Amino acid sequence: MDDISIYGKQGFGNSSGFGRAPALLLVDFVNGFCDPDCFGGGNILDAVNQTRELLTQARKSDLPIVHTRIVYEEDGAENGVFCEKVPGLERLTETASISQIVDPLKPEKGEHVVRKTQPSAFFGTGLAAWLVGKNVSTVIVAGCTTSGCVRASVVDSMSYNFKTIVVSDCVGDRALGPHEANLFDMGQKYADIHTCEETIDAILNLSRNV
Amino acid sequence: MDDISIYGKQGFGNSSGFGRAPALLLVDFVNGFCDPDCFGGGNILDAVNQTRELLTQARKSDLPIVHTRIVYEEDGAENGVFCEKVPGLERLTETASISQIVDPLKPEKGEHVVRKTQPSAFFGTGLAAWLVGKNVSTVIVAGCTTSGCVRASVVDSMSYNFKTIVVSDCVGDRALGPHEANLFDMGQKYADIHTCEETIDAILNLSRNV
Amino acid sequence: MDDISIYGKQGFGNSSGFGRAPALLLVDFVNGFCDPDCFGGGNILDAVNQTRELLTQARKSDLPIVHTRIVYEEDGAENGVFCEKVPGLERLTETASISQIVDPLKPEKGEHVVRKTQPSAFFGTGLAAWLVGKNVSTVIVAGCTTSGCVRASVVDSMSYNFKTIVVSDCVGDRALGPHEANLFDMGQKYADIHTCEETIDAILNLSRNV
Amino acid sequence: MDDISIYGKQGFGNSSGFGRAPALLLVDFVNGFCDPDCFGGGNILDAVNQTRELLTQARKSDLPIVHTRIVYEEDGAENGVFCEKVPGLERLTETASISQIVDPLKPEKGEHVVRKTQPSAFFGTGLAAWLVGKNVSTVIVAGCTTSGCVRASVVDSMSYNFKTIVVSDCVGDRALGPHEANLFDMGQKYADIHTCEETIDAILNLSRNV
Repeated sequence: MDDISIYGKQGFGNSSGFGRAPALLLVDFVNGFCDPDCFGGGNILDAVNQTRELLTQARKSDLPIVHTRIVYEEDGAENGVFCEKVPGLERLTETASISQIVDPLKPEKGEHVVRKTQPSAFFGTGLAAWLVGKNVSTVIVAGCTTSGCVRASVVDSMSYNFKTIVVSDCVGDRALGPHEANLFDMGQKYADIHTCEETIDAILNLSRNV
Repeated sequence: MDDISIYGKQGFGNSSGFGRAPALLLVDFVNGFCDPDCFGGGNILDAVNQTRELLTQARKSDLPIVHTRIVYEEDGAENGVFCEKVPGLERLTETASISQIVDPLKPEKGEHVVRKTQPSAFFGTGLAAWLVGKNVSTVIVAGCTTSGCVRASVVDSMSYNFKTIVVSDCVGDRALGPHEANLFDMGQKYADIHTCEETIDAILNLSRNV
Repeated sequence: MDDISIYGKQGFGNSSGFGRAPALLLVDFVNGFCDPDCFGGGNILDAVNQTRELLTQARKSDLPIVHTRIVYEEDGAENGVFCEKVPGLERLTETASISQIVDPLKPEKGEHVVRKTQPSAFFGTGLAAWLVGKNVSTVIVAGCTTSGCVRASVVDSMSYNFKTIVVSDCVGDRALGPHEANLFDMGQKYADIHTCEETIDAILNLSRNV
Repeated sequence: MDDISIYGKQGFGNSSGFGRAPALLLVDFVNGFCDPDCFGGGNILDAVNQTRELLTQARKSDLPIVHTRIVYEEDGAENGVFCEKVPGLERLTETASISQIVDPLKPEKGEHVVRKTQPSAFFGTGLAAWLVGKNVSTVIVAGCTTSGCVRASVVDSMSYNFKTIVVSDCVGDRALGPHEANLFDMGQKYADIHTCEETIDAILNLSRNV
């Protein structure tokens, strides 16, 4: 990727800032995406571990928190093109173990769980409306995979004019090449990229300024 | 990208097929994205040149054809987070030279032109409804940039359950690294990747079978 | 409504036709909307009874069939403005008896069930994508209430460019004034209005012509 | 409409309140909808006249202001089911006199103009994202017609969790029966109904409390 200097020359990669009222979005941190024999691998478990700290702070700071899961109907009535490209996705049903949110990040009461069948947390879901109802300006994104559902959710979050933060050590992918390539794309065009530590600091600063 | 063998093991990269009724979607082939001093560069001009052949065949075969342009209101009323990340986008206004579709691919009468302010050709536009009205099953995508508006449009096309074809030599990017990385992601998860020649053959086969 | 002759003079009320490939959409036929002490009343039970015949024919003719339910999260995490306007809606949860589809119209295997929190069956759901995946041109609508979720779903169905049929004796409302007023609006602007008998005839004609 | 007492018994018609940050949405106040020989008539001109006062106050109070127009492509490329139901809509093109916003309500610099092809101001447009970008909690709706594009826009506004206010004397329809019937539906289920005077008072109160 020697030729990416052109991005700087053309004005890409500017910051859109942290905004006034963040929510935390955890994308598809489910058992099946943490298991290399299913859809997991790479640095996804590292991302889960790092996200515990982020989630703890978000809860302390009373941020709106939303989790996503991929859930298809048991009888296959909902399967579409995504399942043709990636056979096996249709096994992620309401009760399947592989589609349950991982234990360390289990949703608490009052946290919203979005069921989805497509990559983006916003596509065919009530997420945008939910964020509007919570008076949110900013979506902080963790989850997996960086090159899949995280990327798709980040593009839609920005398209809805939410300032969007990708937490670099709280997103993971089954392979590092796509992880890095997508962090680059998102940082240049759609979102600000920060570490978990930086993000927690920004959340704390916001509380201090209220 | 040595570690991507895991994609094959996990069942990614299957084909979703060509479908019964394709439309052609040309994403953001406008002057400003063909000029390295604006938002262009890389292999975008090659993509424009190759797309002439694809467009000619689509017209001969009477496919529904849709072009997109990024268009912001002159007075800045519409600028949002995307313009914060990429200052300069707001110069793509209705009458600006940089936001006009390039001469070799000028829309003809009856072809639909979508104005958009976000990466995806589907976001905040009537494109999905238009394709439904045309009884389309499949969206063939050319345009630029591969890592930007093409990728975002492809994810949404697939999410709407249109079979989606990315024409590898008819999409281009200002830098080759992101171009290749995004072709990989799309081919593994969202779309079938074919050359212009293969795509034209598939269109011709379809006509023969009607 | 003496003054509605102006609709005719201005060209409203034209037919959009039956189309080539219908699906059947049953909106919110759940226990709570059939009980006058909950959200029911008026001619809703008549609509349920008449819809049995329509559903039977749709199954015989192998139409894609979709049912909707209003479902809110148990802990109130999802409640929004709709629940402020109509307190009590939030009691329609996944397991509540009032949010179960009525016995005579229970979904069979392979029929799609859409959970929604807003009036339209399309808003914040995957319904449009599901219909695209089924190659549908036309949405036949039954359900309740005529002036509520049926009307909202019909407007969106038409907006997505699906030809839309409202089955006049298979939609019901808790009060007849709004029922009639909304049949008028829909027939003038968004959908063709047919009786159950006429609709079944049209489905049978379609099968004969295949 | 003698039987509508059931609405009260079932808890409909509650208030969702005025919220913290309103925007003003003027729906389809264009020449063709003010001319009884085109799509106008009834009390639409009264609504235009009353809306002048509302718009003046919204400008003084620096509310985000958005206007909508129905605009179809000149060559008919965009016509769909709505134009089948209401032939003549397709004459509302970018440059046609009938699709220009009426003189007394002409948009000023910085006010957003949404072009749409469907009833709702939100469907296939960037309006929801624009409101998010302006940190809006509440949409105040004026325009025409009450039973058409106003109603469709109000349902979507509420569905996106914006508190929604319909200004009863600033909305109009070509016939009074549908006007009244739709004010009833919206007030019971989707929006708070206020007069222009009450709405201006609420805007002024908000400014005082800042």
